[in-house]
Amino acid sequence: MNYKLTLSYDGTRYKGWQRQGNTDNTIQSKIESTLGRITGENIEISGCGRTDAGVHALCQVCSFHSDTEYSCSELLRLLREYLPEDIGAVSLEQAPPRFHARLSCKSKTYMYRIVTGDAPCVFERKYVYRFDGAPDIEAMREAAGYLVGRHDFMAFCSLKSSKKSTVRTLECIEIRENKDRIEILLTGDGFLYNMVRIIVGTLLEVGEGKRKPRELMDILESRDRMLAGFTAPPQGLFLYKITY
Amino acid sequence: MNYKLTLSYDGTRYKGWQRQGNTDNTIQSKIESTLGRITGENIEISGCGRTDAGVHALCQVCSFHSDTEYSCSELLRLLREYLPEDIGAVSLEQAPPRFHARLSCKSKTYMYRIVTGDAPCVFERKYVYRFDGAPDIEAMREAAGYLVGRHDFMAFCSLKSSKKSTVRTLECIEIRENKDRIEILLTGDGFLYNMVRIIVGTLLEVGEGKRKPRELMDILESRDRMLAGFTAPPQGLFLYKITY
Repeated sequence: MNYKLTLSYDGTRYKGWQRQGNTDNTIQSKIESTLGRITGENIEISGCGRTDAGVHALCQVCSFHSDTEYSCSELLRLLREYLPEDIGAVSLEQAPPRFHARLSCKSKTYMYRIVTGDAPCVFERKYVYRFDGAPDIEAMREAAGYLVGRHDFMAFCSLKSSKKSTVRTLECIEIRENKDRIEILLTGDGFLYNMVRIIVGTLLEVGEGKRKPRELMDILESRDRMLAGFTAPPQGLFLYKITY
Repeated sequence: MNYKLTLSYDGTRYKGWQRQGNTDNTIQSKIESTLGRITGENIEISGCGRTDAGVHALCQVCSFHSDTEYSCSELLRLLREYLPEDIGAVSLEQAPPRFHARLSCKSKTYMYRIVTGDAPCVFERKYVYRFDGAPDIEAMREAAGYLVGRHDFMAFCSLKSSKKSTVRTLECIEIRENKDRIEILLTGDGFLYNMVRIIVGTLLEVGEGKRKPRELMDILESRDRMLAGFTAPPQGLFLYKITY
């Protein structure tokens, strides 16, 4: 039977989503070992988004096959009982045989949360990036406009060399502002390694006036990571929504 | 000069507000040592509410005297720089000479946050009490009604013996419900040791049907802690608002 598991997690203490060994401190291996403990099977899961170390998920989806005799609701209850409290099993359902969390995904949305100014935010301190200054939101929106569409995002990717395509479609970038909060939502068909964080860092440099919005066109065209902005830190980033 | 300092803090890793020694892990001594480091003076602060170990504050007020030559805005900036990130300095102002954070206070509001059901809440897990079940909110509201007013709250106090008065005025108890969230707000002129948490525990036992709402009258009258309900855990409790 094929399953679709929806998760939320606080990525603070994990080395990201993707398993690197069999007993490493990643979210994938934590879930796989928990499923193994429950079912007695050797279960491998496929996650939709490979979140980096320290990145969170409000909505992550993974798929896996199992021959367990537990019902979905029993399996969900056991997952909630055995998973650590910073990984939440939101829902579990049977999926069509060919469903695959990453390959079947139509689009993903990431949200990046920023707090400006120096007013304390003690309860959210692990879930926002505190940015010193008051960035120009309209300039950031203008800059973001140049990134929307189908482009080669090589300049916005941390991987040094890869023969794989770095062309992706960014469907939209929405920038919301409310008092000292900024939320940047990016929706697309796929994201390269560190792509969201480099885009956010570059947009913030536009917001600070260090770059002109139109520079984004030149950066895209250059395909040169060195021309883009800084990589915004992981704790402000959330995998936010997945559409199938 | 007399100062009024407004704070918010995540109480998770502290042994409560009140200093127990000179180098203990309490919020009071953390702030006093930070103020001492900034001003070079030996500063003692008075807090409005003495929150227990693990209890949080959205709004705590303390007062202190200092001869520092720093302006309020400079002192606030230095506090924000030196305080740990789980203690936030919200605002600082000069206060009239006779202002005292606790003695001048007209009323305080505590908020207790509960999540029912077993849906995960990974980002709030340290700031709510997860309660297994679906308590009857109307029964809890009826029970709360018996507590409002001026009463001897000895039965809702953890201190074994004290010659001090245990009479307090509870101005109102508001119970808000939204999906799987319950917030209980208690406003009064003062609260005894563990009083909010014992009231919340007792109300939850009413909500579960283990007690009748009218029992609250008998408990009050008994002045016997053993007749009241359990002490709800600290992580759901916030000092919420202070009125002068």
